[in-house]
Amino acid sequence: MTTTTTSATSATSATSATSTDYATDCATGYVHGYSEAEARRLGDQANTLVELLHAGTAYPPGSRVLEVGCGVGAQTVHLLAANPGVHLTAVDVSADSLAQARARVSALAPGVQVDWHHSDLHRLPFVDGSFDHLFVCFVLEHLADPPAALAALRRVLKPGGTITVVEGDHGSAFFHPESAAARAAVDHLVRLQTLAGGDSLIGRRLHPLLTEAGFRDVAVRPRTVSADGSRPELVEGFTRRTFVAMVESVRAEALAAGLTTAEAFDRGIADLHRTAEEGGTFHYTFFKALAVRP
Amino acid sequence: MTTTTTSATSATSATSATSTDYATDCATGYVHGYSEAEARRLGDQANTLVELLHAGTAYPPGSRVLEVGCGVGAQTVHLLAANPGVHLTAVDVSADSLAQARARVSALAPGVQVDWHHSDLHRLPFVDGSFDHLFVCFVLEHLADPPAALAALRRVLKPGGTITVVEGDHGSAFFHPESAAARAAVDHLVRLQTLAGGDSLIGRRLHPLLTEAGFRDVAVRPRTVSADGSRPELVEGFTRRTFVAMVESVRAEALAAGLTTAEAFDRGIADLHRTAEEGGTFHYTFFKALAVRP
Repeated sequence: MTTTTTSATSATSATSATSTDYATDCATGYVHGYSEAEARRLGDQANTLVELLHAGTAYPPGSRVLEVGCGVGAQTVHLLAANPGVHLTAVDVSADSLAQARARVSALAPGVQVDWHHSDLHRLPFVDGSFDHLFVCFVLEHLADPPAALAALRRVLKPGGTITVVEGDHGSAFFHPESAAARAAVDHLVRLQTLAGGDSLIGRRLHPLLTEAGFRDVAVRPRTVSADGSRPELVEGFTRRTFVAMVESVRAEALAAGLTTAEAFDRGIADLHRTAEEGGTFHYTFFKALAVRP
Repeated sequence: MTTTTTSATSATSATSATSTDYATDCATGYVHGYSEAEARRLGDQANTLVELLHAGTAYPPGSRVLEVGCGVGAQTVHLLAANPGVHLTAVDVSADSLAQARARVSALAPGVQVDWHHSDLHRLPFVDGSFDHLFVCFVLEHLADPPAALAALRRVLKPGGTITVVEGDHGSAFFHPESAAARAAVDHLVRLQTLAGGDSLIGRRLHPLLTEAGFRDVAVRPRTVSADGSRPELVEGFTRRTFVAMVESVRAEALAAGLTTAEAFDRGIADLHRTAEEGGTFHYTFFKALAVRP
């Protein structure tokens, strides 16, 4: 769950950036940048949501599994932990991210073998039907043409093999106390991702997308995060460090695009933080889809 | 999950009304009216959502259970089916609804004993600590003062007893295709319920409400309905016959209140119906809370 991306560049220059620099990385590709702080944010998100997002994904030992768009390996380590004995291949369009993913797996799952490939998912270097299962998490939201991507992925999946797709949907976010300023700030993030050619409301579209891409037995299930005072680790790990941090990171870009004023944006961010304080609540729905290649 | 209510009247005059008459019942109390069509709508909703809403509610045989605001018994029959052997007491502020609930239970659970009481939940005719468990479904959303209601309910619960609260949250609704007109129509429903003294965004507030009312171990879990082409029964039973029907039912009231024009409202309804057609999706989050009286 990240924000905008414009092209398949690797922005190695941003590796020492702080979170306030995220938005300025836009011109180089991925709006959050490829900074250490962003890698940590993605890791926090993955750790907080591991049970929510990975539950139900179980591949038999020996399965040939492809993780598409592994990024910095935030999900890869959980995929490996939950599925010992699979033959995992991981691809990403960013060589720098791939290097970080490799380092993360080495550190957290030493001795586990992964085949890493630097590749665009539209032109995967694998023959037809190479894999038993595909795992695609927080990738489609960034793409200009998800149907073309799904067609390319389907090609490398064997008939009868499964594709798992996990996506968020920023339009699913709601919270207490309600705030028009906070909703506007979230809407700016959605708008920026649209301007960058992505779709941060893609979660709700997974069923038609997979169906139209020719998969069968398409089953999409909502996985809703609900963070309140009874779950301080979720409030910290999800509301503050994942969602609000993500909205906050596009401040400069939203101002530069003329979508809002500094005052209005900051009021929205303050109101979002309020939902993480005592008496506040925050809710967000991810979608997990499972489908089969005929 | 219903819309506005203003007072505790029983509108028996509307029993033969059709769905298009719902909104005109507003002056008599419950905006949907107490018509046969509305009773059927509530029954459709309950049957469609029974697994989603009742899963996890299991009371030992012999438990003294109070259902608060049983209405026409839409949930009562499922509560009884899932919990054989409990001593169920059911109260409602409407004598007419209570009669329908009694008839429904007689028809669907013949021989099962229920103690029916015509009572306002703020002034329950039971001594302190009379019940082991309370079940409160789609009630708080209609009340002007939920904290006062929860205090009154807490009184009749024994120390160590549980309260289960189920509520929707209309602000949680989102759908594909996205539509500003559809969102506006939903917002009008939310606004009308606010004007009537209720809160159709109450689901997100259950945790602070129960906590502030002095309950402990408050755990609120989202239960998200996701209706798409793979679940035609949910599309029909929930999207069309529960949610869209509910929004549609306040058409006259929304026009009378000057919130919208006929054209704009009807476009919103048409767009909501579109989400139930091929390629469309619809999502809504209910909340189920469990808490203990200290």
